[in-house]
Amino acid sequence: MNYQYAKRMENLRASEVRELLKVTENREVISFGGGLPAPELFPLEEIKAVSAAVLEESGMEALQYTTTEGYAPLRRWIAQRMNRTLGTDLDEDNIQLTNGSQQGLDLTGKVFLDEGDVVLCESPTYLSAIGAFRAYGCRFVEVDTDDDGMLPAALDAAIAANPSAKFIYAIPNFQNPTGRSWSLERRQYLVEAAQRNGILVVEDNPYGELRFEGENLPSLISLAAPGGVLHLGTFSKTFCPGYRIGWIAGDKQVVEKYGLCKQGTDLQCNTLAQREIAKYLELYDIDAHIEKIRRVYHRRRDLAVETMAREFPGGTSFTRPQGGLFLWVRLPEGIAARQLLTACMERNVAFVPGGAFFPGGGNENTMRINFSNMPESRIVEGLTIIGEELRKLLA
Amino acid sequence: MNYQYAKRMENLRASEVRELLKVTENREVISFGGGLPAPELFPLEEIKAVSAAVLEESGMEALQYTTTEGYAPLRRWIAQRMNRTLGTDLDEDNIQLTNGSQQGLDLTGKVFLDEGDVVLCESPTYLSAIGAFRAYGCRFVEVDTDDDGMLPAALDAAIAANPSAKFIYAIPNFQNPTGRSWSLERRQYLVEAAQRNGILVVEDNPYGELRFEGENLPSLISLAAPGGVLHLGTFSKTFCPGYRIGWIAGDKQVVEKYGLCKQGTDLQCNTLAQREIAKYLELYDIDAHIEKIRRVYHRRRDLAVETMAREFPGGTSFTRPQGGLFLWVRLPEGIAARQLLTACMERNVAFVPGGAFFPGGGNENTMRINFSNMPESRIVEGLTIIGEELRKLLA
Repeated sequence: MNYQYAKRMENLRASEVRELLKVTENREVISFGGGLPAPELFPLEEIKAVSAAVLEESGMEALQYTTTEGYAPLRRWIAQRMNRTLGTDLDEDNIQLTNGSQQGLDLTGKVFLDEGDVVLCESPTYLSAIGAFRAYGCRFVEVDTDDDGMLPAALDAAIAANPSAKFIYAIPNFQNPTGRSWSLERRQYLVEAAQRNGILVVEDNPYGELRFEGENLPSLISLAAPGGVLHLGTFSKTFCPGYRIGWIAGDKQVVEKYGLCKQGTDLQCNTLAQREIAKYLELYDIDAHIEKIRRVYHRRRDLAVETMAREFPGGTSFTRPQGGLFLWVRLPEGIAARQLLTACMERNVAFVPGGAFFPGGGNENTMRINFSNMPESRIVEGLTIIGEELRKLLA
Repeated sequence: MNYQYAKRMENLRASEVRELLKVTENREVISFGGGLPAPELFPLEEIKAVSAAVLEESGMEALQYTTTEGYAPLRRWIAQRMNRTLGTDLDEDNIQLTNGSQQGLDLTGKVFLDEGDVVLCESPTYLSAIGAFRAYGCRFVEVDTDDDGMLPAALDAAIAANPSAKFIYAIPNFQNPTGRSWSLERRQYLVEAAQRNGILVVEDNPYGELRFEGENLPSLISLAAPGGVLHLGTFSKTFCPGYRIGWIAGDKQVVEKYGLCKQGTDLQCNTLAQREIAKYLELYDIDAHIEKIRRVYHRRRDLAVETMAREFPGGTSFTRPQGGLFLWVRLPEGIAARQLLTACMERNVAFVPGGAFFPGGGNENTMRINFSNMPESRIVEGLTIIGEELRKLLA
């Protein structure tokens, strides 16, 4: 059979992260690769209770089809929490549940992107957002960034050159891949520039709750005029990713379009998952749980940063994120992270080379380190090995 | 904010079935609308045991991210069952898990369809397949059908007029919406015609296991040369739809493309759901469970057919399906099923008008009746009401 694929398939490549995940299912591998939460922090005993309660109290409903927009009590909880923590003014009809944030990204592409449309994004940006949007045939325009977010002059120039860009995609908190967070000034600048030019902002916020130092800064959706920002959230990093429950929050008119798209895409999210999370939120204190995650990730980040400072050779720089799951390393010019990865994989240590986070390529001397998934001793061991292999490459 | 949606959004309308589902969440409504299984048949006690076992034995893995293709033991089970019941020769790498068959349809559109591509389909065909494919900008060419499947002459003419059609979409068993099944001859004719013309066949088989009379007939995938047919399956009708677990089975090369698309779409299916279904299949006898479903649906179909024969006025015809969840009614010419629905909804009875199952429209005097979801007494009560309202309309 000579398959005639759609044109979009020419641009699709396997995500390096997902491919790495396959390798790292081997427990011997010390993986700084995926964006995996620490599984030992999953509230397993509580989930056992919640799972039993949902089946006991509402088994037939929990195993049946439900509405596309999702379980109303869960959407209400999300809206109320966003109102409290992010300063929004939403109700359940502003929320459409998605299969993790990743489906929020896919549906964003489906709702907004025609072939040839432009998406403005941070340089670098989240690998799988590139993949999700690219499937709809868009073109990326990267906006240069520093430790505080997109550079105002670069943003202005990108908008001027692409006045009909469909949206600006940004991850203001503990960005993937860099771990950096936007300053308040840059957040304001972005929102105002977008508003002035009638461009939508898509704010991806999977890590915002995981701040372990510094002060929370306003979300883009709270800074913008109503409707100017779509906000993506998820339970994957604050609860468990296996449930695949995230959400898109925004203007009701747009959220309804997302619902229409989700109907044709997969009808609805897993019904049990929606009810189990809602039941957990009813019976337990997710804030106490998140605080536990923050403390553990804080220690792991400290350990990662200390180890890298000690073991990585001069000429290497890295970020020191105030939250989230990732940090970002820039190797000396001329050193290819892919080559370093090959050497490290020989010693069962994995990370993600940074080049794939740039839609336009290049930056082969960068890499992303996840510090949330490995226990402390393996963080030290793994980063020490990376340091050793890096020294060998430099020699 | 003046939202600039993608062009595809102009063609997307809310599914009448999903909108009806919202209404029918009201328990007073006697609904023949959705394709809902009978929830009282869900193996609730077994699922409680399975859910507890998965969390006890592998809680951390079950709550964590997993691979895109899905849990290997479950994919292996699916391949082996297809080999046994459908005569295929597949292994786990021929299977990609999807969020129900609906995501199989969406990914099929994503993998194969460019704007303007042609899809050949039965007339009528599954409403939400129309929605899923249409999102990728395809054009539908309806092939006329009778009780045995697509008419050979109509199929030949459609292929001749559209030699570069991307695929032929068919539901050979207990079709949605008509409940009709294809004869062996028509199955062979389709597969050979497709093969001769190098056109892919997409076989959607959500109901194949639910035959309550007559003999099983070969699947299209078993009749075709290797690679010529992609086959979509699901646990939604034989187990529970709330889990959202289905699959696409086909040539490894194509299945890999589906995996690539799924990565960008939502990374993976719910991890718990995959493991719970696999555990159920390990611990319990799904064949005994399916046999129970068959017996109940068989009685309900009998009752529906008897009631309609007695209560519906002359000039009305309907199918008598040998399996599945649906039957199809043709009202006297000039009677609009939508008008009948309005009258019936006043009396808390719902069904789906048939016009929406024809991509090209028309056929407003048809309707789909789901007979799986309502208990016996309500089937009689609801169909009697429809009969009464129909007589009023005719008077």
